[in-house]
Amino acid sequence: MKVGNKNYTTIWEDENNPGVIHVIDQRWLPHKFIIECLTSVDDVVKAIKEMHVRGAPLIGITAAYGIYLSAIEAKKNGLGINFIFESAEKIKSSRPTAKNLFWAIDEMLSILSNYQNLDKIIPFAQLISNEMADSDVEDCKNIGEHGFQIIKDIANKKSRGIESYPPTINILTHCNAGWLATVDYGTATAPIYIAHERGIKLHVWVDETRPRNQGAKLTAWELGENGIPHTVIIDNAGGHLMQKGMVDLVLVGSDRTTSSGDVANKIGTNLKALSAFDNNIPFYVALPSSTIDWDIEKGEDIPIEIRNPDEVRYVDGLNNNEIVNVLIPPETSPALNYAFDVTPSRLVTGLITERGICKANKESIADLFPDKVVKP
Amino acid sequence: MKVGNKNYTTIWEDENNPGVIHVIDQRWLPHKFIIECLTSVDDVVKAIKEMHVRGAPLIGITAAYGIYLSAIEAKKNGLGINFIFESAEKIKSSRPTAKNLFWAIDEMLSILSNYQNLDKIIPFAQLISNEMADSDVEDCKNIGEHGFQIIKDIANKKSRGIESYPPTINILTHCNAGWLATVDYGTATAPIYIAHERGIKLHVWVDETRPRNQGAKLTAWELGENGIPHTVIIDNAGGHLMQKGMVDLVLVGSDRTTSSGDVANKIGTNLKALSAFDNNIPFYVALPSSTIDWDIEKGEDIPIEIRNPDEVRYVDGLNNNEIVNVLIPPETSPALNYAFDVTPSRLVTGLITERGICKANKESIADLFPDKVVKP
Repeated sequence: MKVGNKNYTTIWEDENNPGVIHVIDQRWLPHKFIIECLTSVDDVVKAIKEMHVRGAPLIGITAAYGIYLSAIEAKKNGLGINFIFESAEKIKSSRPTAKNLFWAIDEMLSILSNYQNLDKIIPFAQLISNEMADSDVEDCKNIGEHGFQIIKDIANKKSRGIESYPPTINILTHCNAGWLATVDYGTATAPIYIAHERGIKLHVWVDETRPRNQGAKLTAWELGENGIPHTVIIDNAGGHLMQKGMVDLVLVGSDRTTSSGDVANKIGTNLKALSAFDNNIPFYVALPSSTIDWDIEKGEDIPIEIRNPDEVRYVDGLNNNEIVNVLIPPETSPALNYAFDVTPSRLVTGLITERGICKANKESIADLFPDKVVKP
Repeated sequence: MKVGNKNYTTIWEDENNPGVIHVIDQRWLPHKFIIECLTSVDDVVKAIKEMHVRGAPLIGITAAYGIYLSAIEAKKNGLGINFIFESAEKIKSSRPTAKNLFWAIDEMLSILSNYQNLDKIIPFAQLISNEMADSDVEDCKNIGEHGFQIIKDIANKKSRGIESYPPTINILTHCNAGWLATVDYGTATAPIYIAHERGIKLHVWVDETRPRNQGAKLTAWELGENGIPHTVIIDNAGGHLMQKGMVDLVLVGSDRTTSSGDVANKIGTNLKALSAFDNNIPFYVALPSSTIDWDIEKGEDIPIEIRNPDEVRYVDGLNNNEIVNVLIPPETSPALNYAFDVTPSRLVTGLITERGICKANKESIADLFPDKVVKP
């Protein structure tokens, strides 16, 4: 997507320096646009753990490149193939909730384990990680196409009997499930970008998404750079807006989806789902099937990451052109920082996947992905 | 309540200088404890509008003192009694949602309008505003006693069949309905302070309460100063904690309550009410009857204040021992800042008033306040 007038993806290998992976260091957005080079497994672990890159799909792709880098490192330092498997464990331990992290690494390992020779493994690892990145872009485009139909239908419905045409479709989103959370297009934002491109009048309510403010910082920034009208709101505001008829659709991403359609996403998502349900507003989750955990049926079994409480106690932002960290509560007050919550499937109108839209239940998901369902 | 080892109320007239009203300038808490003097109507309007004082009950009492100050000003500057009525309008226009503001001013005016002479009005105004402050303290104490019974019942229930005794009762609160929002004790906090005093083991989940963070800044501070165990959480976290059985009771205040029990309170309250309802957790609203608007039946008819969007875009906190303001979203992204939302009565387990506990419906409220109901 666009940054200024230039098109970017969130992750790419340097054209002239194989083994140098570029990412946008998202910690500095929206105030600074900084590109970082990852050249080792440690770089990758740090980038995921400290959230230079974040968003389930992008975490997965970054992890895949991490496996590629581990093969290069193994060769350079005269280490055995085992270094790749050790690195895989290390990368897997960087964050616990996003399914794609484990999925991407397991995919890489299962293919690479056919080869015993680093000279063969390296080009294969390069190829597969690049293919995974391309496939993520493809998935997001497809999610965008399927989700576009939902927006189009709402626009058609809303345009009946109103005076100003076209009507503005108000979409509320939580956190960043934008192109910054994927390689390109995004999951929840893909339908928005496509609908905007095709002339549907849109406005996005952007939940700021405490504690790390990915909504205010990332979603607002990427929507702004790509010309989408939007308004930043506090996470507390969505219920009121929904009551007042100011939201036509809630569209969020997923970090892990169970085989029966429960959705783990950024903490606070389930409060928006409750309000959407209470106000009869469609609540859709956009996700590539790589976020689906076929081994887990119940949302309560998804491990929920607890992060550093100082992410709650401190807020960073721009002051006098510098990024400054400020303390909000009393120095002596403790905080607790769950990073995700689970939205039960009964509150989800539907899942928008790369293969199409399905209901958030076991049968409907299995119908769309018969090849992936784990047989009991 | 206590600040360090000293007892304070939030507002008091200077013992040696009649007509000098002291308040705690709450904008600097928890990082700085600053006491401010109000000596004119303009001081009062500014203090309410810019939230040096906040919380529906305290706004009401401050407004009452404002009428007292207007009488002194009228005399000092040789103005007529009309100055009092003009000042009343000015103070009323400072904030739109809290019912107590209008209630307190109307009470003052209706009594003072019996007198034509400033020399008589001034001591009466002093007397009435002091009495109103005392009566607010009394109301909060009574709310505390009634609410204590709810906490005690939950503690009794929870203690059955568990191993560790006494059990910890986890209470979630939103915003600050503490002593800082009243003259003393608070509304939602009064039952907590009393239960703590009487040996019930408590822990309070403090919603930080964006955008102005009254939870993280004020509630955490006052609970800490008074020895109540608490943990600051983001506003997004409550749903997850309730799903996980980590909340026994939700207890909030009210800025305006309709005659049928709909509750306007700090924005975000209705999301917690939805989650409490969904998880079968009691959701109580503590309020002095001065927040009840007997003329309004439906919550949707309560005017909801829209404040400066920069309250959303900027966050202030402590950095290097100074209060610093930082910008979160892109400079170019707009924000919207509704200050309150309405929780429909169907989600409210009960109202805790100074006269006792009632259901959030017309009949039950009228039973408790037969003298106040507006006859059609």
